[in-house]
Amino acid sequence: MGKVANISPLAPTSYPQMPALKGVRLGAVEAAIKYKGRLDLGAIIFDAPATVAGVFTKSKCSSAPVDWCRKQLAKGGARAVVVNSGNSNAFTGKIGLETVKVSADAAKKAFGCKTHEVFLASTGVIGEPLDASGFETHLTKLEKIARENEWENMARAIMTTDTYPKMSTRSFDVDGTTYHLNGIAKGAGMIAPDMATMLSFLVTDYPVASDLLQKLLSKAIGPTFNSISVDSDTSTSDTVMLFSALNGNKAVSSAKDKGVGALQKALSEVLHELAMFVVCDGEGASKQIEITVNGAKSAKSAKVIALSIANSPLVKTAIAGEDANWGRIVMAVGKAGEPADRDKLTIGFGDVTVAKNGQREKNYSEEAAAVIMKKAFIPIHVDVGIGKGSATVWTCDLTAEYIAINADYRS
Amino acid sequence: MGKVANISPLAPTSYPQMPALKGVRLGAVEAAIKYKGRLDLGAIIFDAPATVAGVFTKSKCSSAPVDWCRKQLAKGGARAVVVNSGNSNAFTGKIGLETVKVSADAAKKAFGCKTHEVFLASTGVIGEPLDASGFETHLTKLEKIARENEWENMARAIMTTDTYPKMSTRSFDVDGTTYHLNGIAKGAGMIAPDMATMLSFLVTDYPVASDLLQKLLSKAIGPTFNSISVDSDTSTSDTVMLFSALNGNKAVSSAKDKGVGALQKALSEVLHELAMFVVCDGEGASKQIEITVNGAKSAKSAKVIALSIANSPLVKTAIAGEDANWGRIVMAVGKAGEPADRDKLTIGFGDVTVAKNGQREKNYSEEAAAVIMKKAFIPIHVDVGIGKGSATVWTCDLTAEYIAINADYRS
Repeated sequence: MGKVANISPLAPTSYPQMPALKGVRLGAVEAAIKYKGRLDLGAIIFDAPATVAGVFTKSKCSSAPVDWCRKQLAKGGARAVVVNSGNSNAFTGKIGLETVKVSADAAKKAFGCKTHEVFLASTGVIGEPLDASGFETHLTKLEKIARENEWENMARAIMTTDTYPKMSTRSFDVDGTTYHLNGIAKGAGMIAPDMATMLSFLVTDYPVASDLLQKLLSKAIGPTFNSISVDSDTSTSDTVMLFSALNGNKAVSSAKDKGVGALQKALSEVLHELAMFVVCDGEGASKQIEITVNGAKSAKSAKVIALSIANSPLVKTAIAGEDANWGRIVMAVGKAGEPADRDKLTIGFGDVTVAKNGQREKNYSEEAAAVIMKKAFIPIHVDVGIGKGSATVWTCDLTAEYIAINADYRS
Repeated sequence: MGKVANISPLAPTSYPQMPALKGVRLGAVEAAIKYKGRLDLGAIIFDAPATVAGVFTKSKCSSAPVDWCRKQLAKGGARAVVVNSGNSNAFTGKIGLETVKVSADAAKKAFGCKTHEVFLASTGVIGEPLDASGFETHLTKLEKIARENEWENMARAIMTTDTYPKMSTRSFDVDGTTYHLNGIAKGAGMIAPDMATMLSFLVTDYPVASDLLQKLLSKAIGPTFNSISVDSDTSTSDTVMLFSALNGNKAVSSAKDKGVGALQKALSEVLHELAMFVVCDGEGASKQIEITVNGAKSAKSAKVIALSIANSPLVKTAIAGEDANWGRIVMAVGKAGEPADRDKLTIGFGDVTVAKNGQREKNYSEEAAAVIMKKAFIPIHVDVGIGKGSATVWTCDLTAEYIAINADYRS
């Protein structure tokens, strides 16, 4: 990271108090992988095997740690997830595979578990070999300082161009007992949907079997992490993992269980909140943009149109300039290639309808739109007018600061 | 246009001498549509009916002039093409259709032709009604000043955020007679393939029938205008038209005619040159980027991968920062969704191979790459290593100047 970015103007004003989860310890150390003087190697350690679910990048050039996690997922239980920032260990060929083995072996020795119980994630520069030779020493040290209340340090250790740590938590009651879901995430650039997006790790103390956990995660991802885009660039390393800390308890495997329903709700909320934190930390972001498309031919079609708007550099720069340039939204709807009828299209910013039935709204007030464009949260509404498909996606604006951050990321 | 942009550093150092074509007059006037003190309404007038071919935007929200041209194309002969800048007459509903009729009628009266012989194009702001009430006066004046040697003024009249006029010409001999192909174009932003791109008008004095003319144009578009991208945004107004000024001569209709072969070659060269002028005038561009993908599963697959690289904001900002950040190229190959094998991928900048077989090349010299990255022309080579498909596309870098231009375009 060539420059120290200021904290995003869209950052939350406070961080949530993350509750301790029994049998779930976290730790973070300085391994000086790339950054100096900051936490860059973290781990979540499960004292007893946890169940695990994961969703990963669809990139055809996925990183070595992603390949590793996919393989281990099939084997079941998790005792640790080890994450480093500064180097993504992606496109590192055979050396990358060896690094992954060295890392898992280091965790095995440091945490006293099996290598297949170790999950790995790396984020940062692509294509540079990651030196994991010091990981055993670092992880041994980490194991000693790991505590149940170290969520924030873990969230900080996985940051790259992020300007603030991303944490979210929800609790829910099942038969008089309170359970929790804690989640952290990192991501600021190279964010686009289709699993997609970034690193995120979630842990619940409600005991759920792996298969069911996977179903819950896969369902909740679509309208959250898979509905955000910062720059349309999909990373080679994107990873979202959900763990259930069983602590030796029997795992629930029925989707009809009432605790599972509560967990699903908590999961949707936590993933949504984390996804919004990512959008609001979009590199150089000064505005959060919510794009709702209604009246499309199908929900799928609505999402394609919404993402076409969200990924248009011209729409995003107009919003950076606080310009209610709805013509560019028409352009983005048109280029999406989905069924649309120019003369049925309605477009609005917030509660101001700008265009209706293919032309500018008669009572449209540029002044009213200007008031909305000055705000930090910009809601864009599009009604395609031909069907019942709906979708909402989120993105941020495209500013000169994005260029500044990305033109010298490696230097 | 809120600001006066400096001329692109990638602009040509001189403009070609455009030869006069018999029976083809051009004129441009100040109509003050949006800009003040500059030519913004131009026309090419054919003294006798010309044959005509066209390729238009694939946008589902195409502009009223595009709809008009599509309709007239089926009817045949052209006596004029009228082009204004400053307002695209797109997404203007019924008013837009009426404006088109008013414009065509004005041309009919001014030039003494039929309305269906008038072709129209508009470029500029979307969604604002275009006031064509003064067009008859303006075009009558234009008709009087129209000359065969006014190509440059015509090229200037169609500019929007372009920083220089775009002109190209080729001549070819057929049986001892010299024929010509003249072309002009405009386009700097909202440029993406799939017809795609911008406004461009080409005229040859070699007499070719409409059907054959259409085949020649459609064939030549793929590797030229449909292989460039500035910002992945497809305009609602993109139009490329090719006219053959018959001047009463018999039109050639056989593809085997030797003059047709020469014209096809000239067409490819002129379209390529104009396409490069557009890329080099990409909003805020400081580098011209040529992306060649070999070894893909098919030519189509190669083009998808090449465009994924060309449209990646992270690749484009890295090049703006003169950073040989090949990891982002890996990312862009991966996100393209086309068949690829990480461990067979080769990537190079110019003659420097950066990565081979899925990892950094052993002899890779960051210094050698740095020398290439400092140049204005950046060739990127990707070999996917799995097939024989090839494609080349061109784009420009993404700079803070792009943001500055687009954040206040309307103001």
